[in-house]
Amino acid sequence: MKTAALIMAGGRGERFWPRSRKNLPKQFLSMTDDGKTMIQLTVERIRPLVELEDVYVATNANYKELVLKQLLGLPKQNILCEPVGRNTAPCIGLGAVHIAKKYEDAVMLVLPSDHLIRCNDVFADTLRAAAAVAETGDNLVTVGITPNYPETGYGYIKYNKEARQGTAYAVERFVEKPDRETAKQYLAEGTYLWNSGMFAWKISTILKNFAKYLPETMAGLEKIRAAVGTPREDAVLQEIFPDFASESIDYGIMEKADHIFILPGEFGWDDVGSWLAVGRIRKTDEQNNVIAGNVISVNNRDCVVQGGEKLIAAVGLKDLIVVDTQDATLICAKESAGEIKKVLEALRSDGREEYL
Amino acid sequence: MKTAALIMAGGRGERFWPRSRKNLPKQFLSMTDDGKTMIQLTVERIRPLVELEDVYVATNANYKELVLKQLLGLPKQNILCEPVGRNTAPCIGLGAVHIAKKYEDAVMLVLPSDHLIRCNDVFADTLRAAAAVAETGDNLVTVGITPNYPETGYGYIKYNKEARQGTAYAVERFVEKPDRETAKQYLAEGTYLWNSGMFAWKISTILKNFAKYLPETMAGLEKIRAAVGTPREDAVLQEIFPDFASESIDYGIMEKADHIFILPGEFGWDDVGSWLAVGRIRKTDEQNNVIAGNVISVNNRDCVVQGGEKLIAAVGLKDLIVVDTQDATLICAKESAGEIKKVLEALRSDGREEYL
Repeated sequence: MKTAALIMAGGRGERFWPRSRKNLPKQFLSMTDDGKTMIQLTVERIRPLVELEDVYVATNANYKELVLKQLLGLPKQNILCEPVGRNTAPCIGLGAVHIAKKYEDAVMLVLPSDHLIRCNDVFADTLRAAAAVAETGDNLVTVGITPNYPETGYGYIKYNKEARQGTAYAVERFVEKPDRETAKQYLAEGTYLWNSGMFAWKISTILKNFAKYLPETMAGLEKIRAAVGTPREDAVLQEIFPDFASESIDYGIMEKADHIFILPGEFGWDDVGSWLAVGRIRKTDEQNNVIAGNVISVNNRDCVVQGGEKLIAAVGLKDLIVVDTQDATLICAKESAGEIKKVLEALRSDGREEYL
Repeated sequence: MKTAALIMAGGRGERFWPRSRKNLPKQFLSMTDDGKTMIQLTVERIRPLVELEDVYVATNANYKELVLKQLLGLPKQNILCEPVGRNTAPCIGLGAVHIAKKYEDAVMLVLPSDHLIRCNDVFADTLRAAAAVAETGDNLVTVGITPNYPETGYGYIKYNKEARQGTAYAVERFVEKPDRETAKQYLAEGTYLWNSGMFAWKISTILKNFAKYLPETMAGLEKIRAAVGTPREDAVLQEIFPDFASESIDYGIMEKADHIFILPGEFGWDDVGSWLAVGRIRKTDEQNNVIAGNVISVNNRDCVVQGGEKLIAAVGLKDLIVVDTQDATLICAKESAGEIKKVLEALRSDGREEYL
């Protein structure tokens, strides 16, 4: 059976302001030393499993040109532009009906476009195994990340070590972001994985589940499917999609459906959730700094300084993030990285759109 | 007797990089909320004692245009351009012979151009008293600052509370910058003042002292005096001045001469020695920040953020100095303000003159 992939690339990446802007979000930026953008790396690492003609990218119309420019050779019709954001369930449904139009059935991989993976080989092996489990039955398969510390920013998935399906385990339940104590408990129990938002299933399986758990969405998806490849395609999409209920695939289907399996992924995953990630991802100097661009550094430690054209002189800094761009410079304590959104709120409320 | 003033304005103000540059040092910048430059404030505060035509400014040729532009009405011939820096003794000698050419005798005030005074009235009264003590005899008078904490960055002057001359006290000795323990002792004793570099004496008195303690310099000064106002003036200055021994007035004369008096100054003095001073001088917000320019501030404390045109977003910072200019941005921990010179050293050794 063919394997196709849906890459979800509609995010705004506000936590990477000022490099990430509404017209150039995180997935289209390079965060690594190799200079490749995150979406380029995402496609590169699934190419051992999926032909480029079977790679679909869900995004919005603003980013269509960026996708075309960054993913050379990707068929234009594989870029699926959501008219509005309606969370992951409608997005995945849209991808599924497009793939369904092309193949009678296929295994569908669903992948975020803005995560990093250190070991591409292990990643490909894990996805291959997930695809195999998906293909053997009406299974909904997800890939979880083996946690190595009690993170409170991710959802967790509890699995049953005794109930296996090939290399996968039966999922017992999805749990929301825990508090610190609960996260420590999950880590100690050893049967919880981080929810990475990566999935594998057959098109036939996921559409059956849409029909069962999200029947209204399914009805709309049928209309879209009928129009794919016809002159009415875009008009139907614009008409139907905005009426979809906003729903995550986790809550809408995964937490309710049967035959949910999970594979533990141990391939050096990083969700690159904030500027802090750059300190983990990039090469550091002896004082654990990551410094690039037009920067003079004097006695700094544990800092990320992403300079641009303008000279930045950094002196005696500790645990700071500095990001310079053409029109804006961020200077942020590492422990305050979560407050960058307050800068964006201030810019919005002041009507300073040019900086967003 | 007339009172004239020599304002010393040849300093480079490197500790205020990147706003202070080799072509625009600290004394020509505004550090206060009123927008007036430091040299403008210096002249303004001595105007109750001195006519503008009797104000002399010692600087170097690079800054002549800045002086003319900032001190409107100052006679052009009152700008004395030192061909090279030779410390304060030759500079003061140059001022003295210029004033001597104009008046048979006069009281000469010597003032730095880059300090701030909070109480101009008290300052004028103190300088008036110093001038009176200077006029009554061959006295060399200095104004000391009553210390309010054990500063280790200034020289101290010990005086004798029992030996008075008008409102001034006899100086016992000049002492170098002390260590912390010694400074505490000075503070406890109550007979030490900070050396502020402000002086008052008659022209006749200071020239007698040059003749006695710095006879070679005096010989050169005589040649310069003879040439002042003649077509040879500049040529003689260029020939003689560079041969002067580099010497401070403190070491060259004050520490050796007789009849040294001091007046305690309590007029809210600040030498504006580094960016830290801005946090003391300017209005602070509730979190003790001084923030100006194109800045979005989120949860910062005890910071100085001097923004420019480019947007700076400052988030979660503590005890930091941020100074943005057209081509360079400084980000410096307050406790590392002394290391800004290392940035300049790096720029020099990299040949990046455009930033100096």
